[in-house]
Amino acid sequence: MARTPVWKSIAETLENEIAAGHYSAGDKLPTEAQLAARFGVNRHTVRHALADMAERGLVQSRRGAGVFVAAEPTLYPIGKRVRFHQNIRASGRLPEKRVLRLQTRPCDATEAEALALDPGTSVLVYEGLSLSGGVAVAHFESVFPATRLPGLADTLKTVSSVTEALRQNGIADYIRAETRITAERASPTQALHLGISEGAPLLRTVGLNVTPEGEPVERGITWFAGDRVTLTMASD
Amino acid sequence: MARTPVWKSIAETLENEIAAGHYSAGDKLPTEAQLAARFGVNRHTVRHALADMAERGLVQSRRGAGVFVAAEPTLYPIGKRVRFHQNIRASGRLPEKRVLRLQTRPCDATEAEALALDPGTSVLVYEGLSLSGGVAVAHFESVFPATRLPGLADTLKTVSSVTEALRQNGIADYIRAETRITAERASPTQALHLGISEGAPLLRTVGLNVTPEGEPVERGITWFAGDRVTLTMASD
Repeated sequence: MARTPVWKSIAETLENEIAAGHYSAGDKLPTEAQLAARFGVNRHTVRHALADMAERGLVQSRRGAGVFVAAEPTLYPIGKRVRFHQNIRASGRLPEKRVLRLQTRPCDATEAEALALDPGTSVLVYEGLSLSGGVAVAHFESVFPATRLPGLADTLKTVSSVTEALRQNGIADYIRAETRITAERASPTQALHLGISEGAPLLRTVGLNVTPEGEPVERGITWFAGDRVTLTMASD
Repeated sequence: MARTPVWKSIAETLENEIAAGHYSAGDKLPTEAQLAARFGVNRHTVRHALADMAERGLVQSRRGAGVFVAAEPTLYPIGKRVRFHQNIRASGRLPEKRVLRLQTRPCDATEAEALALDPGTSVLVYEGLSLSGGVAVAHFESVFPATRLPGLADTLKTVSSVTEALRQNGIADYIRAETRITAERASPTQALHLGISEGAPLLRTVGLNVTPEGEPVERGITWFAGDRVTLTMASD
């Protein structure tokens, strides 16, 4: 009978300990060095075991922070009122945003059409990462009509909720007019940002937010890590 | 200056011809042998050019059938009334289903809860492929309460529309109670079924259909090829 490879037996041991509740969802596993010492193997073997567990969705490696027991996916309702901070809080986790870029540039043809702008009009580009309970769950890029919202760039430097930033710039309310959803592979940059492997499946949503009067205020593209977020849609 | 590789120049030529309308969405490209003869290169070089174009989403290779100019993704509305045949026809394409499995077996715990059945009650499993205009766009697996719908298995052997099959079994209408959406990698089997590469991104939806009175009649999991279908959601 073929001998079970050592890395596999380590993975099974850790899997059983997770199942038994020795480590809970979100817990950090011991370091590679600690696990190597515990199992009497080199770090290469430990890494093989952890890579196998990550591949099966049992653990998640976070760049520079360590390896964590995979959490249940964050449930993210998609409907008439899509609010990141509210959605993440409703799932019992802490919402955060990390700004990667705030830039004003002329809109492209797709943005002009979505936001009902004349070609070449200025848009504010807001690119960043969305975190749920300290874990990056999505990469986003939104564009806003810059002329209509001249103070928004400054507000977004300090206010991480788009809802709140829009409110401070005179948009008291907005609704989601349409969402389009596809699946894509993570680009090398997205893989780095989200701490996932290159080519990992992403949920890509394109959403258009409009005022209750129907005026477009935001076109946002969000790439959710496929194993960290489940979009939910109730039908009423 | 670096010389452009031959495969790249072939890919650019074909791309320009597609852009110019010499080949339209859904058209079959000439065979590898024909292209090799035309460009005076071997088939390996042609294959390299086509693989590059496929990677960029310009063409799609269909097992045994050839290489086709990529069609625009099928827009697939997800809402209160999700109807495959209707959705595909609305996008101007021909809907078809290919049955892979019709089987009765005891339900598992998840299915029991979703369909409000006692554990171990019989469910009818209906697995198959959904085609849009002759192209497989999704792999699906639905379960129905078998005791409540004893004639459904026979109906589904000849009637490809679930809506119509349910109607013939006394379910005049149903609505989508909830949909959950994640992204996953295509398994080797799914890659074969859909004619896509292993690990390609899939949109996975789990939907629960209920009668207008709220009685569950179908729990369906569908894996859409990420580059062939865009789920759309209007918010009203």
